[in-house]
Order: sequence, then structure tokens, then C-alpha cells
Amino acid sequence: MAVGLSAPGPLHAVKGIRLAAVHCGIKNDAALKDLSLVEIAAGASVAGVFTKSHFCAAPVILCRRHLASAASARYLLINSGNANAATGQAGIDAALDCCGALAAATGVEAEQVLPFSTGVIAEPLPVAPIRNALPRLLSELAADNWLAAAEGIMTTDTLPKAVSAQLEVDGRRVTVTGMAKGSGMIKPDMATMLSYVATDAEIAADELQAMLDRLVAGSFNSISVDGDTSTNDSCLLIATGAAGVSLDRSHEEFYRSLEHVFQQLAQAIIRDGEGATKFVEVCVNGAASPEDARCIAFTIAESPLVKTALFASDPNWGRFIMAIGRAQVSAIDTDRLDLYLGSVRLLHQGLPDPDYREEHGQAEMAGEEISVRVELNLGDASARVWTTDLSYDYVKINAEYRS
Amino acid sequence: MAVGLSAPGPLHAVKGIRLAAVHCGIKNDAALKDLSLVEIAAGASVAGVFTKSHFCAAPVILCRRHLASAASARYLLINSGNANAATGQAGIDAALDCCGALAAATGVEAEQVLPFSTGVIAEPLPVAPIRNALPRLLSELAADNWLAAAEGIMTTDTLPKAVSAQLEVDGRRVTVTGMAKGSGMIKPDMATMLSYVATDAEIAADELQAMLDRLVAGSFNSISVDGDTSTNDSCLLIATGAAGVSLDRSHEEFYRSLEHVFQQLAQAIIRDGEGATKFVEVCVNGAASPEDARCIAFTIAESPLVKTALFASDPNWGRFIMAIGRAQVSAIDTDRLDLYLGSVRLLHQGLPDPDYREEHGQAEMAGEEISVRVELNLGDASARVWTTDLSYDYVKINAEYRS
Repeated sequence: MAVGLSAPGPLHAVKGIRLAAVHCGIKNDAALKDLSLVEIAAGASVAGVFTKSHFCAAPVILCRRHLASAASARYLLINSGNANAATGQAGIDAALDCCGALAAATGVEAEQVLPFSTGVIAEPLPVAPIRNALPRLLSELAADNWLAAAEGIMTTDTLPKAVSAQLEVDGRRVTVTGMAKGSGMIKPDMATMLSYVATDAEIAADELQAMLDRLVAGSFNSISVDGDTSTNDSCLLIATGAAGVSLDRSHEEFYRSLEHVFQQLAQAIIRDGEGATKFVEVCVNGAASPEDARCIAFTIAESPLVKTALFASDPNWGRFIMAIGRAQVSAIDTDRLDLYLGSVRLLHQGLPDPDYREEHGQAEMAGEEISVRVELNLGDASARVWTTDLSYDYVKINAEYRS
Repeated sequence: MAVGLSAPGPLHAVKGIRLAAVHCGIKNDAALKDLSLVEIAAGASVAGVFTKSHFCAAPVILCRRHLASAASARYLLINSGNANAATGQAGIDAALDCCGALAAATGVEAEQVLPFSTGVIAEPLPVAPIRNALPRLLSELAADNWLAAAEGIMTTDTLPKAVSAQLEVDGRRVTVTGMAKGSGMIKPDMATMLSYVATDAEIAADELQAMLDRLVAGSFNSISVDGDTSTNDSCLLIATGAAGVSLDRSHEEFYRSLEHVFQQLAQAIIRDGEGATKFVEVCVNGAASPEDARCIAFTIAESPLVKTALFASDPNWGRFIMAIGRAQVSAIDTDRLDLYLGSVRLLHQGLPDPDYREEHGQAEMAGEEISVRVELNLGDASARVWTTDLSYDYVKINAEYRS
């Protein structure tokens, strides 16, 4: 079902990062990897953002705690098939047990292991299969295992998601490579359901966190499949420094490379959204504030009636009007509002454009990639959100998830 | 598809109200009524609440204006099949034209006619068929035509919705009868997509509006099919006074009769929700504030992942946890939270109830009527919301609406 999404292209190794993935037994199908390990060289900076859910999962609680400790992170241990969420103290203990076993096997502190989980909520995390798989995982660590690791974190994803970029800085090659997973329960609130991006540039820890916050705002925090926010959303940005180049936000080409990787990963999640048949970009321009622009963009992107019209390729723009109308913003001047599908203007100053013909709208809706643009003509704030349609298959996938 | 909804029972005439409905030609199928008329005796009080959409429709703008004028309302003219929304000044002119024609035919002022429309957004209202049908409508006015009028306001509804109650006050019979329509684009924000309730009690205008605001809060403003708010939502409460009894909120039995009619009509809209296979009540108790309680209840009720689990009769309560977790409220103490399906407790103090068995949850989810209850144990505020599941047919109905 993925819309305009194919298997990842070449994934460049990031100096200072090694990866591995195996099937340890959490997923029933032995052909599916369900445990990934990322090894980070000593001295790297690591920044993270996590779900804002009141019910955040045990691994999210531990990740926050371990990242805040003095010891720098050396391993990411990521299982799929079980979210270890709504599992209480037993869930914390189970995740700590896994961290401790990996720490003992590698000679680091347990706080230097960051645990992540994704899958079914409210079932106990099976610790034994994870512990038993550690020797195999460690023996398979390699710098060119990004694709295997991306496969190991998949749940309802139909394709692994990973993106790579390289640039030259002061005669040295700098690499940015990242992976992500996610397909449903996607409206990240500060981060998405598991994404890991690494660079071999050297970036100070505070600067890295500031960069991550800004990158996430324009990528994972600007997407929605179904408006539902996961208990496990986590996103890490790692800078190993192994390329021997120190960088910060002021290096435009480097920041654009990072932005490219984040946005491609965020788009990949939408292109692989549950039941998606369309990839939809919603742009709202000319808003009085960035909050208003985002609110209107997300109200359009998450309206079931807009999403079913997108699925039907029906330029039923009354539904866009309805969604804009119900957006919880203080001020919309309907007499100044223009609405576009692609380059076709449907509404001018709040009324049907006299030049608009239904067949023009139909042509825009027929494609797999649809662009919706609202010009409010009130101010200069903008927002851009990526979303999917709502199809029979979204219902099917989520009605049959546990059966 | 309607869940536990059958054709209306006996509908008692309300003294001072006459009704009629015909096919005038807005809908293609000549067997379907598409124009209803309600005549209100002189001297009645009329209160209304309307959509808060920024894009409210032309008839909503006129209704507000006419209700605010000195002249008391004498006629409601309601067409289905065309919403007269996003139609600008031409839409206002078209609705005024219809009001003027009816006023001329009956000898009242145009401001005494309240226009209502429901149907496709952003198409011009066809005035001629409405004007031409007025003589026929007027000749058919009768006190026992509530059912015909309820049929005349239907769009995607599968059944007409009308409810009646009677009581004795001071030896006189008082009647409350109401009708409503609505099935999709249902998350009323101050009112729902067309509802009209009349009583022959005498109620002062200010008191009537206060009663209506309170009644709507616990009925039409506590339902959601898809979270989408219409451009045309309108709800009127009419008190003709023809029963010769003056009443206000302090008369408990009368208020309960009104409440019964409002809640039954609101439930009927949910039971007939587009594609509905379940009728779901979501109760949130023990919240710190009424706003928090409503926010959590609506977040559960509108979550696509909760709704697909309801459709699948799957007690996948991780999804309830997810929805509660993402609710935009300031404080939830997950360690104090209990979750129930019917009388079965799934979660106690934030963790799986040790006595819970999957088959108990399955039994609760198997029925057509499902009750979800969250006990926050934080304060004493509550909310109750009625909603539906999300089925293949919801997608089908809305993907094929214009084809």
C-alpha cells in the first residue's frame, strides 16, 4: 500500500556506529527480525525527544533517566512486537534487566544502555528471549547494518525506512544516516514512534538537542496518519564526532543534510501510513500565528470526511471548508480565504472561483500525491503537514490487528 | 445500519404547531421529501443555538439575524439536499428570497421566517423549486405531521428521528415533541445538524434560551460520529404556550421530559451514525474539572484506533490507554486510574486488573451497546459522550457520497 515509497537507497556507514538485528522470538514469525542493537562509540553526543503521552511506556521513562545521567549512552537496544507500555513497575524492571544484561556483556554501565520498545500495548515484555539473543547480536555488529537494523524495528510497516546523506566539510567527508519506523498511531507529539539518526560530525550536546528540537518540529511533529499519539514515540540524534569535524546549526549545508534525512524519514512514515493510497501535503499560509496555521493544517489533515474524500479522489471541497470552519482558532476571515488543490484555485475570497471547473479539481485529486493549500491572507505565519487518506484498508488493518 | 434504532413511536401533536413536508425537486429521487415547513402560532417563544463554524452557512446567518429581530418567528422553512453553505451573498439572497415568498403567501414579515438547509456544501440553492412548492406545503399543514416533517429533513439518515413526551401539570396536559436529522459530519459545537423541539407549555424567552443551552450541553453537544462539525448545525426549542401552563426549569418533571426528548434525539443521531455498528457510551468520572472530563471522553470517542477496535469487538484496551494518554489535559495520575468495559474492570490503579480475563472483555465488546468508563480518582467532575465505531461502511458512505 505504500505511496511512492520504495526500499531504502544506499545507506552510508556513520563512523563510530555499528548495528545488528536478529529474530529473538517476540514476533511469532521466525523470518521477522524483532531485536536491533546500535553501538555508539565512546565520546559521542546523544540528544533525544520523547512522547508527551501521560501513559508513556517503561522504556521511555528509562531512556529519559539514562540520558540525564552522567554516563554517556553507548548502546540502543530496540525490540519490536511488544511496546512494554502500561506495564507498571514490572515493565520498568524488565527493561532494566535487559539493559543490565547488555551492560554486563559489554563492560559498560546499565545507564549507558537506552531501551526502546514498539508493538502491542499492555503485555509483559518477554525478557528471556532478549537476554538470550544478546551474544548473537553483539557478534553481528557491523557498520553497514543500517538496513537490517531498520528491518528489526518494523511492526505494521510494509517497508523499512532509512535515509542517508553525505557532504564534504573542510575536506572531510561527513555522513548523516537515519532510520525510522511507524505506520499507524501516528501523530507524534515531540517525536515519532522510533527514529534514530546518526552523524559522524562532532556536535556539542546542548547544540545537538537544540538542533533536534528544531528538526523534529518540521518533520516528525508535522505528520499525522490518524491523530493518535503513541505511548512509545522516541527520536534520537547521535553525533559520534568520528569524522573529525566540529559542526553546529550555523553550517547551512550540514543542517540541510540533517533536515533532508529527517523530512524523508517523516515522509516515509506517511507514505507507509496504514491503508494509505495517497500522500497529502497540507500547507496553510498567511495565518495570524504559527499556532493557528498548525491548528488549521492538522484539522484538515485529520478530518475523517476530508480523508475519505481524498481516498475517493473526490474534489469535494465543501469538506475542506467544513474542516477549516471548525478549526479551533480565534480568527478566520472567510472573505479573504483562497483554497488550492495543486495549482488549481477552487475558492477565491471565500467563494467558488468562477474559473474553477470540477474536472480540474478531479485531475488534481486523481494522482497519488495531492497538495492542499490554504491562503488565509491574515498574517505571515505558515505550517506544512503531511498526511494520508482514510481507506477501507485502514479500517481492516486496525480492526484485525490482534486477530 | 442503525444500531438499536427503529422508526419513531407515537408523536403527540403540540398545540400551536402545524407541519408539512413535500418533494420539491432538490433531491433527484421524487419519492424523497426534501422540503419541510413548521408553522408556529403567534405569541410563541423561540430559542436557538447554532454552529460555531467559521464558515457558517447562509441560513444560519439569517436565522441568527431573524431571531434577534423584534418580530417573533412564525415559520421554519427547511430544505434537505443542499446546505447553502460557502455560497456567499448569493446564498444569503437565495435564502431571503424563499423567506420573502413564504412571508408574502402567509401575510407575515420575512424576518418571521427562519430558513434552514442541509446537504451538499458549496452548491447554489435552487430557489424556484422551493418557491413553487410553497402553496402545496401550506395546504398540507397539519398538527399530526411530525413524522412527515422529520422525513423531509433527512440526508444520509437511514431513519427519521423524532421523540415525544407528555405530562400533566396542574390538571393540564403538556406535550414535548421534537425531531432531528444527522448521521455524519457530527460533532456539534453548540448544536447539531438540525433539531427542532416544541412544547405547548408557556415559557418566557430568556428562560427558554437558558433551558436550551443546558439541554444541548448534555445531549447534542455530547455526541460525536467523526469529530467533524457541520457548517449548518442548528437547534431550536419552541414554546407555544397553547397548553395554558407557564413553566420554567424549576419544574422537575417537565425539565426531565424535555431532557428525555433531547437525549433520545441525540442518541438517535449516533445510533444512525454513518456506518455505525455499535452505540458507545464513554463516561469519564473523577476528573479535576468538567473540561478535563470532556476532553478525555471526546479523545477516546474520536480516536480512529479506538473506533476500529470497537468495530472489531476487540477489547484491545491498549488503545484506550493510548487515547487517554494523549488527551490534552494538564494532569492525569496514571497510578490512580481505573478502566471499565461495562461492569468489567480492565485496569486498576493504572495496571491490568489481576482478575481480568480477555473473555470478559470480549463479552462486553460483543454486544451492539458498549459502555466505556474511566475513573480518574482525581476530583468530582464527570462527562458522558455518545459515539459510534469506525467501520468499512463509514468509509464507503463518505467515499461515495457525491458519486
